[in-house]
Amino acid sequence: MTASTSNAPPANLADIPKTHKAAVYDKPGSLSIKVVDVDTPEPGAGEVLVRLTHSGVCHSDYSVMMNAWKALPFPTQEGQVGGHEGVGFVAKLGPGLESSPVKVGDRVGIKWMSAVCNACPACLHGRDAVCANGKISGYYTPGTFQQYALGPASYVTPIPDGLDSAAAAPMLCAGVTVHAALKKAEIKGGQYVVVMGAGGGLGHIACGIASKGLGARVIGIDHGSKKAVAVESGAEFFIDFTQTKDVAAEVMKLTDGLGAHGVLVLTASNAAYGQAPTFLRFGGTAVCVGIPEGDLVPIASASPAALIFKELKICGSAVGGRLDAIETLDFARRGAAKTHYRTAKLEDLAQVFQDMEDGKIEGRVVLEL
Amino acid sequence: MTASTSNAPPANLADIPKTHKAAVYDKPGSLSIKVVDVDTPEPGAGEVLVRLTHSGVCHSDYSVMMNAWKALPFPTQEGQVGGHEGVGFVAKLGPGLESSPVKVGDRVGIKWMSAVCNACPACLHGRDAVCANGKISGYYTPGTFQQYALGPASYVTPIPDGLDSAAAAPMLCAGVTVHAALKKAEIKGGQYVVVMGAGGGLGHIACGIASKGLGARVIGIDHGSKKAVAVESGAEFFIDFTQTKDVAAEVMKLTDGLGAHGVLVLTASNAAYGQAPTFLRFGGTAVCVGIPEGDLVPIASASPAALIFKELKICGSAVGGRLDAIETLDFARRGAAKTHYRTAKLEDLAQVFQDMEDGKIEGRVVLEL
Amino acid sequence: MTASTSNAPPANLADIPKTHKAAVYDKPGSLSIKVVDVDTPEPGAGEVLVRLTHSGVCHSDYSVMMNAWKALPFPTQEGQVGGHEGVGFVAKLGPGLESSPVKVGDRVGIKWMSAVCNACPACLHGRDAVCANGKISGYYTPGTFQQYALGPASYVTPIPDGLDSAAAAPMLCAGVTVHAALKKAEIKGGQYVVVMGAGGGLGHIACGIASKGLGARVIGIDHGSKKAVAVESGAEFFIDFTQTKDVAAEVMKLTDGLGAHGVLVLTASNAAYGQAPTFLRFGGTAVCVGIPEGDLVPIASASPAALIFKELKICGSAVGGRLDAIETLDFARRGAAKTHYRTAKLEDLAQVFQDMEDGKIEGRVVLEL
Amino acid sequence: MTASTSNAPPANLADIPKTHKAAVYDKPGSLSIKVVDVDTPEPGAGEVLVRLTHSGVCHSDYSVMMNAWKALPFPTQEGQVGGHEGVGFVAKLGPGLESSPVKVGDRVGIKWMSAVCNACPACLHGRDAVCANGKISGYYTPGTFQQYALGPASYVTPIPDGLDSAAAAPMLCAGVTVHAALKKAEIKGGQYVVVMGAGGGLGHIACGIASKGLGARVIGIDHGSKKAVAVESGAEFFIDFTQTKDVAAEVMKLTDGLGAHGVLVLTASNAAYGQAPTFLRFGGTAVCVGIPEGDLVPIASASPAALIFKELKICGSAVGGRLDAIETLDFARRGAAKTHYRTAKLEDLAQVFQDMEDGKIEGRVVLEL
Repeated sequence: MTASTSNAPPANLADIPKTHKAAVYDKPGSLSIKVVDVDTPEPGAGEVLVRLTHSGVCHSDYSVMMNAWKALPFPTQEGQVGGHEGVGFVAKLGPGLESSPVKVGDRVGIKWMSAVCNACPACLHGRDAVCANGKISGYYTPGTFQQYALGPASYVTPIPDGLDSAAAAPMLCAGVTVHAALKKAEIKGGQYVVVMGAGGGLGHIACGIASKGLGARVIGIDHGSKKAVAVESGAEFFIDFTQTKDVAAEVMKLTDGLGAHGVLVLTASNAAYGQAPTFLRFGGTAVCVGIPEGDLVPIASASPAALIFKELKICGSAVGGRLDAIETLDFARRGAAKTHYRTAKLEDLAQVFQDMEDGKIEGRVVLEL
Repeated sequence: MTASTSNAPPANLADIPKTHKAAVYDKPGSLSIKVVDVDTPEPGAGEVLVRLTHSGVCHSDYSVMMNAWKALPFPTQEGQVGGHEGVGFVAKLGPGLESSPVKVGDRVGIKWMSAVCNACPACLHGRDAVCANGKISGYYTPGTFQQYALGPASYVTPIPDGLDSAAAAPMLCAGVTVHAALKKAEIKGGQYVVVMGAGGGLGHIACGIASKGLGARVIGIDHGSKKAVAVESGAEFFIDFTQTKDVAAEVMKLTDGLGAHGVLVLTASNAAYGQAPTFLRFGGTAVCVGIPEGDLVPIASASPAALIFKELKICGSAVGGRLDAIETLDFARRGAAKTHYRTAKLEDLAQVFQDMEDGKIEGRVVLEL
Repeated sequence: MTASTSNAPPANLADIPKTHKAAVYDKPGSLSIKVVDVDTPEPGAGEVLVRLTHSGVCHSDYSVMMNAWKALPFPTQEGQVGGHEGVGFVAKLGPGLESSPVKVGDRVGIKWMSAVCNACPACLHGRDAVCANGKISGYYTPGTFQQYALGPASYVTPIPDGLDSAAAAPMLCAGVTVHAALKKAEIKGGQYVVVMGAGGGLGHIACGIASKGLGARVIGIDHGSKKAVAVESGAEFFIDFTQTKDVAAEVMKLTDGLGAHGVLVLTASNAAYGQAPTFLRFGGTAVCVGIPEGDLVPIASASPAALIFKELKICGSAVGGRLDAIETLDFARRGAAKTHYRTAKLEDLAQVFQDMEDGKIEGRVVLEL
Repeated sequence: MTASTSNAPPANLADIPKTHKAAVYDKPGSLSIKVVDVDTPEPGAGEVLVRLTHSGVCHSDYSVMMNAWKALPFPTQEGQVGGHEGVGFVAKLGPGLESSPVKVGDRVGIKWMSAVCNACPACLHGRDAVCANGKISGYYTPGTFQQYALGPASYVTPIPDGLDSAAAAPMLCAGVTVHAALKKAEIKGGQYVVVMGAGGGLGHIACGIASKGLGARVIGIDHGSKKAVAVESGAEFFIDFTQTKDVAAEVMKLTDGLGAHGVLVLTASNAAYGQAPTFLRFGGTAVCVGIPEGDLVPIASASPAALIFKELKICGSAVGGRLDAIETLDFARRGAAKTHYRTAKLEDLAQVFQDMEDGKIEGRVVLEL
């Protein structure tokens, strides 16, 4: 983990340039990125302009850039600025925010859902992560791989004091996502939760929140090379799937023959999904988080009979909403959720994606902007 | 619906014969049944002997007899007495029940789980329907297709006054099953629930409990020939799947474009399962109840991406437990749950199964014993 | 119930006068009201101006006007326009609403919480009814006893087609309040809920939603003179507290000796509160809704021992939020929740309050504006 | 903490004496105890005879002995053997337990509810702690202040390996009670819970389970002399109520001005109860556990208005049931819940109660039998 830069606002916060640096997908569908100068926008009514200092790089950015998800409504547009784990300082307020609690100089974050409608049924049910009119950062709207971005004053996430900006950035997506998933699994203190992909960008945070944040007992599953990060993050047990003939049997053994209470599938692997329900106890919950690329493949072990005889539950969990983000950052501030990350420059983004493609990234990469 | 026989205990309840009539599966795997005389057992410690007067006939009996479910631990044994929807009167108490609230002459029911252990994790979590040591009536233990059967005093279900025994019988399995499934779907008053197989033995009861019992809005799906029974039972809307090109689109239209809050899949059809998640709204729940025969087939539309983007939930629901049974019978007593049934004789059982195989049964058949 | 006026928007909706009629509390603390001309305001950013056609009159308005609640942060101001059950048509949009789904001509409602912050912890937990920065209509901000009022486009409540404006008005407070309270009681189909004040403005709606909306079994308690309205609204049982020596014993008798699952205390009577927990079953919930005037008096029967031995729960429920309002109006549209009301003119408001003081109002009064 | 005796069964487990030592209340209502020889009973059908080796001493024993609780149905009987935190070894099985999983030599516990009916509504809802027919150990039935006691095979609590018998004993009541109370408070990881009486017999275990078991942030309140045990047990913050002028203000300060999510009132003090709701945040929960002696006094701050404006919840929690006990012992085995205790002899019991009366006991006393 690289030492983070200062959390103080830049001295020249009030001097907003006419243009700023941004990394754009110039040929979506391929791994091609250009760093260019783009116009700095004016905040609209109720919006703030954020001077971003850090942005995490997420595998979802890669999937969006590569047009890898068939489930998205339209292909990624040429010239799109990606990124959805941005942290920075409010540089300017749009009209109508005179009495807003958000002030210039506040440290805030922009996440996957950069704005929501507050009025659709999903929003009214506290599921703003699936807002019918939500704007995905770095796909619908210009994202956080740049120096300035817009967000609604009421929807940017306050970053608590005592948490480094670089450490906060990945929490806004990876952290929020696993926290929301753990909530859907309804994991309680003392219960067993399996984390598939325990040493990855999402997984190691899940190990931390589940164990240190919620008091759960974590069984991490991953390549043996990821064992150290998983265990250090909070996994009480670790299964190296490359060395274990029968992963489900191993989980059963670790859980007194009953199976785990829940499992988070954080890998984007259809094979992993096929295993997940098989090592749950009666009434257990598998939470789908990783989105396999390519054709939609049903979860192999999710036959009606298998679900019925053990009364299992399988649910999908999207990134998580505003409340999840606030809670996640609080876990991070208190040290329950920790990100393993290294920093890089905006210009390195293409290489970062290449490393991602090659499976060479442990933890997370955070761009300094 | 045939008028039911009296609910008063038989005059000769105390005269327990040495042998009694029972229908046995003499060649499991085929549709072959013999009615024979079997020994009447003595109740053990904590058990009661029940003089059965009625037993519902369930499609699960057919599946057990035919060895159609690959997920059961062992094949059905030759000579097994089937049946798991029995109603009758306590004829004799076993040792140790002197101060039990259950008395000779009480009207009680025996259901799918005829006995549970009260001590396994499932029992401790109120999920006695999946008790690790539960005894399935008509598969593990002699069932209700006979005149006398045993059950634990603490686990037979009291039948409330004012409910006909014949009407109560199917409630003990079909009714309990759909009530438990509706609870898992967490359907609330005013919400939309789709019932797939709305005119069948389970479905028409589900329509009743959901609408009259819980205040939900029911969209029934079935063959057009089942429309009358579904609507009369409580379906507010009906979709004839043989006449409707795009069932999911139709559900969407009926629900203001949002989709249903929940769906109960009561048919044993893999095709129905494939459709179910497609017409749910964000956060909606599909409950698996019907168990397709033959090989285990994954739910076709249950890909991780499909579940994640709408945060859907799929869960399995077994028959339901003791509390579910008591609640279901109360719904039945108050008229919220009604069974459409016709009565038959024990000797007709083979023909009833044949009609079942031929899809000729509307509602339920209840044997008079 | 008086026939309602048309639900069509006024022909002259676009012609917004400079001033309009309003009923003001000219001497808060006394029953004194003046109808005067006040300036019609301009909608600010994100706000809409609503041409109100109807406003319900609630006992809370009376309490606010009389300064009867010690728990409110400051006394009611001279010249305050009261009212918080308003229905009308959007007459003008404020700046920044070009792409809002709310349009001029839409029928919308204004309720107790006329605006919320969307960002405080309460809002983030779906409890906008207790928003830390919420604006109470008719206390903090000018209310609905006038012809024009302001509200945020994202927080006014859409009124569904097929529901009369006059019938919708009381739903926005009385209806929302009891629906939110029933949700807190977690009442399910088939369970017993006691409604104290069953024939009153809130109570009769509670009887309807609980019975027809949720499938619960309602035991109404009130003066004998209110029996007809309570029973017609949905109370399955009725207890005239003026004629019944031991109300708790009577509830016990009606519930097979177990007690009710929940009770809503809708009267503002400390004596009623003292009774409520005594007729609950183990684990039952008493929901406090009516706010007694005068000094704060503890609930007499809420001793620790009484709560512990039966594991009872007592909770407070404020008016209910945006989602509750939408759900309530849907119950109303479908006929589950019905208001008994009579209409009156704005000029009659003082007399309406006088009747309220004298206990002469059955159901609700709705002003035509 | 005294080192515990061995967890191995006594060598002479099979040699059951005709009589054994027991401490009896010879003059209930006063602090008078005699140690006498009593007949060793035979286990009935489904029962086991337990050779007790340890019993915790609880303040409830003192209250029962002194007839201090007005809410109990009848006065404590002369000659009653008290105690309800017993651990020992199964010495003999009653009839009908041939195939029971419980075997001679198993280490098991007996708790406050020594037996339940498994059939009343409370049992069916998983609330066996308030079973309508439950037998309270040391009040209804002979308790654990003796060398042999009876319990149902299906209801004695298995003691997990790796946990000392002396440490397990207080978990069966104090531990179970606070765990059940924390569940009712629905405290989640990262939330604030106040423990009133944080250094007492119940309180210090609550601090442990809440913090180490559930990931919550504990604010302990107690005499300053109890600070060390509270903090060592898991309290993140501590308020000495003898030195703090405004306890509620202090809690508010520690919780960013919002108040705590929940509070457990473990002291038997009406004054403490009066404070509890005042420092909760909107929607917060106060759980009543400690039972004040003497007349039933309502919770002073529990006025309807106070509960309504912040939507607070107050609930009572009895000792906790079978599942709670199993979960609590698992927390104890893993070190999340630790008891501070010292051991004593059966003959010391009167002195232990005297010390209790004098407020001289820190943590818990466990008798070696």
